[in-house]
Amino acid sequence: MDNQKYITETIKLMQNHRSIRKFTKDQIPKEQIVEIVKAAQGAATSNFVQAYSLVMVTDPIKKEQLSELSNHQQQIIDAPVFFVFCADMKRLEFATGKHDIPMQYDTLENFIVSIVDTSLFAENFLTAAESLGYGGCYIGGIRNNPKQVSDLLNLPDKVMPIFGMTLGVPAENHEVKPRLPIDAILHENEYTTENYQRLLDQYDDIFRDYYKTRTSNAKDMTWTQTMATFFSQKKRTHMKEFVETKGFHLY
Amino acid sequence: MDNQKYITETIKLMQNHRSIRKFTKDQIPKEQIVEIVKAAQGAATSNFVQAYSLVMVTDPIKKEQLSELSNHQQQIIDAPVFFVFCADMKRLEFATGKHDIPMQYDTLENFIVSIVDTSLFAENFLTAAESLGYGGCYIGGIRNNPKQVSDLLNLPDKVMPIFGMTLGVPAENHEVKPRLPIDAILHENEYTTENYQRLLDQYDDIFRDYYKTRTSNAKDMTWTQTMATFFSQKKRTHMKEFVETKGFHLY
Repeated sequence: MDNQKYITETIKLMQNHRSIRKFTKDQIPKEQIVEIVKAAQGAATSNFVQAYSLVMVTDPIKKEQLSELSNHQQQIIDAPVFFVFCADMKRLEFATGKHDIPMQYDTLENFIVSIVDTSLFAENFLTAAESLGYGGCYIGGIRNNPKQVSDLLNLPDKVMPIFGMTLGVPAENHEVKPRLPIDAILHENEYTTENYQRLLDQYDDIFRDYYKTRTSNAKDMTWTQTMATFFSQKKRTHMKEFVETKGFHLY
Repeated sequence: MDNQKYITETIKLMQNHRSIRKFTKDQIPKEQIVEIVKAAQGAATSNFVQAYSLVMVTDPIKKEQLSELSNHQQQIIDAPVFFVFCADMKRLEFATGKHDIPMQYDTLENFIVSIVDTSLFAENFLTAAESLGYGGCYIGGIRNNPKQVSDLLNLPDKVMPIFGMTLGVPAENHEVKPRLPIDAILHENEYTTENYQRLLDQYDDIFRDYYKTRTSNAKDMTWTQTMATFFSQKKRTHMKEFVETKGFHLY
């Protein structure tokens, strides 16, 4: 492929990302976590509000409880450390409170901003960690029981867990999952659905091959089948109530 | 600093990120955009739904219109290309439709998932581009007039613009903006607000120094002052209506 000259170390890292769910017993030195968090903080943040916090869970009992709350995922217990990424408007309440100005934060806009901010921060976090040889996996499963997760970590109002992340030295290695064809993602000047049928058929073939031949958990399924099954029922219908209980607003 | 050995090329890139708003006339070769998008697609995606699309705007007339719609930001006109990052459930409708299974997507959970997915994708995108020497800036301003942006790019229902991004060869260079002290972001095993007053005071001093001495647009303000001003009024209160019009759900 003659695009090789455009593949920087960073791009290579990203194009080779895979979720890691099995870890060695190795710990991650605190100094490295500090540099990873600083790299994560380097991400852009909307109007520099920095509306996120990170709870690093090292306590084995809490990790076990978090595993239970997240569909009993063993990786949360096995990883040397588990991170919970939170949308955070609480620190901003302290910041604005310093000037006795009531914070007008109760908008859907701020809900969106805090989730985007948290996610940009998290993606830098994982990529930075991967550049040091670590691997990990986003855990959306903490949204199965968000209130219990919130209580366990003592999250106050205006702080909401969005997802978790396991991190450690990889004890497994597997193939990169093929992504959608770029033409199904990238549109020029206007959006079109014109090629979706064809591109999805094409992708289904690629994906089925990947699933059939992968070294672990092989199956005979296409991407669109997986999606049809996944979206055949509603998930986590408690989220609205939870979000509002935490003092975020959806209007 | 003796943490130097932990600073990979990727971490260095992230820790040195700054938003770039001025660009040379240089174009970005299509081959590079392809590799950047592939790196972005490498990001994790919740249950592999890949709920995002990217509209690359090269048409100068559309760029001008998008600039107007985003608080007249000149950088959108000046950048060789402007990207609009969209939360996308439309392609998934095609995917599930292939199997005649009605898609149960109308939950706040899916709204959150699509925004997280889009953001993880975008942060990889920008970092990958920066590793090639480009610079850019997230443009939340497209949410000032989301319906008009949506119409201009022909976004169907279930596709929603979340933010834009300018990208190009930097024609400016400035200092990295100091982030919150790490102790204000990173909590261990439980969240605490205990040190916020002290840490925000400390950060305000650092931030004021940065603002006072930076080479362009110097001012005498602290971070908490900036935040108090920013949050003194509600922003973009039209978002709920827009989101619902686009067929995303907040319940």
